[in-house]
Amino acid sequence: MKDKAAGRLQSLREKMATDNIDLLVLGPDSHMRWLLGFAPHADERPCVLFVSAASSAFLMPGLNAEDVAAQTDITLHRWGDGDGPSEALKSALYSFGARSPARIAIDETLRADHALLVLEMLPGVDYCYASSVVGALRLKKDSDERHGLTASARVNDGAMQAAFVAVRPGTTEREIAAVVQGYYLDHGAKPGFDIIGSGPNGAYPHHASGNRTIQAGDAIVIDIGGIYQGYPSDMTRMAFVGEPPEDYRQVHAIVDDALQAALAAARPGVKAKTVDAAARRIIEASGYGEYFTTRTGHGLGLDIHEAPYLSPTSETILEPGMVFSIEPGIYMPDRYGVRLEEIVYLTETGPDIFSRLPRDVHQGKA
Amino acid sequence: MKDKAAGRLQSLREKMATDNIDLLVLGPDSHMRWLLGFAPHADERPCVLFVSAASSAFLMPGLNAEDVAAQTDITLHRWGDGDGPSEALKSALYSFGARSPARIAIDETLRADHALLVLEMLPGVDYCYASSVVGALRLKKDSDERHGLTASARVNDGAMQAAFVAVRPGTTEREIAAVVQGYYLDHGAKPGFDIIGSGPNGAYPHHASGNRTIQAGDAIVIDIGGIYQGYPSDMTRMAFVGEPPEDYRQVHAIVDDALQAALAAARPGVKAKTVDAAARRIIEASGYGEYFTTRTGHGLGLDIHEAPYLSPTSETILEPGMVFSIEPGIYMPDRYGVRLEEIVYLTETGPDIFSRLPRDVHQGKA
Repeated sequence: MKDKAAGRLQSLREKMATDNIDLLVLGPDSHMRWLLGFAPHADERPCVLFVSAASSAFLMPGLNAEDVAAQTDITLHRWGDGDGPSEALKSALYSFGARSPARIAIDETLRADHALLVLEMLPGVDYCYASSVVGALRLKKDSDERHGLTASARVNDGAMQAAFVAVRPGTTEREIAAVVQGYYLDHGAKPGFDIIGSGPNGAYPHHASGNRTIQAGDAIVIDIGGIYQGYPSDMTRMAFVGEPPEDYRQVHAIVDDALQAALAAARPGVKAKTVDAAARRIIEASGYGEYFTTRTGHGLGLDIHEAPYLSPTSETILEPGMVFSIEPGIYMPDRYGVRLEEIVYLTETGPDIFSRLPRDVHQGKA
Repeated sequence: MKDKAAGRLQSLREKMATDNIDLLVLGPDSHMRWLLGFAPHADERPCVLFVSAASSAFLMPGLNAEDVAAQTDITLHRWGDGDGPSEALKSALYSFGARSPARIAIDETLRADHALLVLEMLPGVDYCYASSVVGALRLKKDSDERHGLTASARVNDGAMQAAFVAVRPGTTEREIAAVVQGYYLDHGAKPGFDIIGSGPNGAYPHHASGNRTIQAGDAIVIDIGGIYQGYPSDMTRMAFVGEPPEDYRQVHAIVDDALQAALAAARPGVKAKTVDAAARRIIEASGYGEYFTTRTGHGLGLDIHEAPYLSPTSETILEPGMVFSIEPGIYMPDRYGVRLEEIVYLTETGPDIFSRLPRDVHQGKA
């Protein structure tokens, strides 16, 4: 991992030079994990990595210091619970020399209080977000990342099949979610998230799995993901309790057509918004445009949501090595929702789908 | 929940008036959950609640809007993935009238990019953190919160016993963690966190459960917590594989003495730092002062770490209804760590411990 970290650090510094960034400011989150191969425990204690062209330093809560020192040679500016972080932060910033940075890139996921603690010590500094620097480097996945995401998707395929088995009248959304979470644990993964949206709840794209009891005639959105060896998964399939009526079958087919149109549009050199438009055109042409209320997709890497985003306005040009979701949906308030979601790795010739599961509706016993 | 939300909103506005706060700015996190009884799905999309003396408004990602509208009457300023949040944010801020707020309280846990999006629209505004406003109101728990935390602690007692059973030579830390997580799921809780620190790993207070294999002669820190019906739990006990040697027994006894001294010191009207000092004095007097590298405790409520913090410098005056951890430890690099942790509810007469488990070392078969 240290070799990989050295290579990534070099790429980062080249990018910082190109973008005129004097100092990078990262919290204990995914940007840091990508760069160093680890991130210390994150809590209310400010824990911040600073990287300049020539040097790097950590503002480090004392209780994490020994653990971190075993993993990196970066200088740690330690602070204790009794003293607070101010003096250690000053010494970390001073370690970069007397000249104040003119322009910094700050981790967009940093807690507000930690970010403002740093910004207030650098009055008048110009800032941008680390997403434009580290995030840009994270866009194209290397072979380790591709393998990690593939392995995680494989576990998720199993979790989806476990969810299908659990779908039956009388079961609650939360019980199905617990089956999925148990599957992750049994297979060496950590539960990530679960959206079990049954009946009208499926019309909420971000529904929190709740106490609603599954009934005959329910369409059920099953959008689940775990974390396997550090890599997340994310996939949506549909279940139906009993024989799906014709209107459901039509909507399901439209969403799958939209997904296939987006797959066909996703090629290196194409703008992300073009892929979004390909899916949206199908749904609009079918008369359901007003019910497709989300973007078409998001990137997936160390984060379950990261660049590239496939929205109607995204100018990002797709490149081989990018990994992203394609997940059109039709969300009809008070009725039901249909979403189908694939995660793909973009090759030179087009998208390679991680999941091996078909996108047909899973028909459960009524 | 709407009645409770109305009462809490009124308390909040009284506190805002006292503190001269014109506008409160909350993200979809625990402050919001405490205030409203729910928080929308949190992701990279800005989702912010604004509360003034007379009004309130939400900046709301479109895909969460229907879900939220079903739970609250607060006006939603919606934005879509294609357009971005700027216009909706302006309309939300304008809804509070032409006068700019002079002083705001901003959620310290908000993402940096979301916080700065708001702050840049309010140039020259004076800010403090929501911890001093909402956080202050959350310090004293009501009977629902006490019951919720008690029920969560009860599940955690069972999870700890499951962990004890899993401790045996040849098992990895991560396998013990998976047993604990499985216990939570089987008992209707969600996995929260796990620190299984075996042998020298126990000397890292925030060790991430890893691949180290348990060996005869290991001391093992087991610090675990789940989330049951929205309330977290948190507890640390020690296991030992085989017969603990005399030096371990002594260190364990010192930590337990420190914990008991803190329990005895924790009374309404006492400063938090006095409780910290009571524990620290015992460990220092035993010659292990340099190895007690953390504060003595933290509050627990909707968050696993919240006020009051029991540090050497905390001037917070303890009051009946507060809930906090007491968790002294001795962390000896390259050797082992011993931490014992209770969560207590402070009554008029002193602390009431949630857990029913003894703090003796659990002796596993070698």
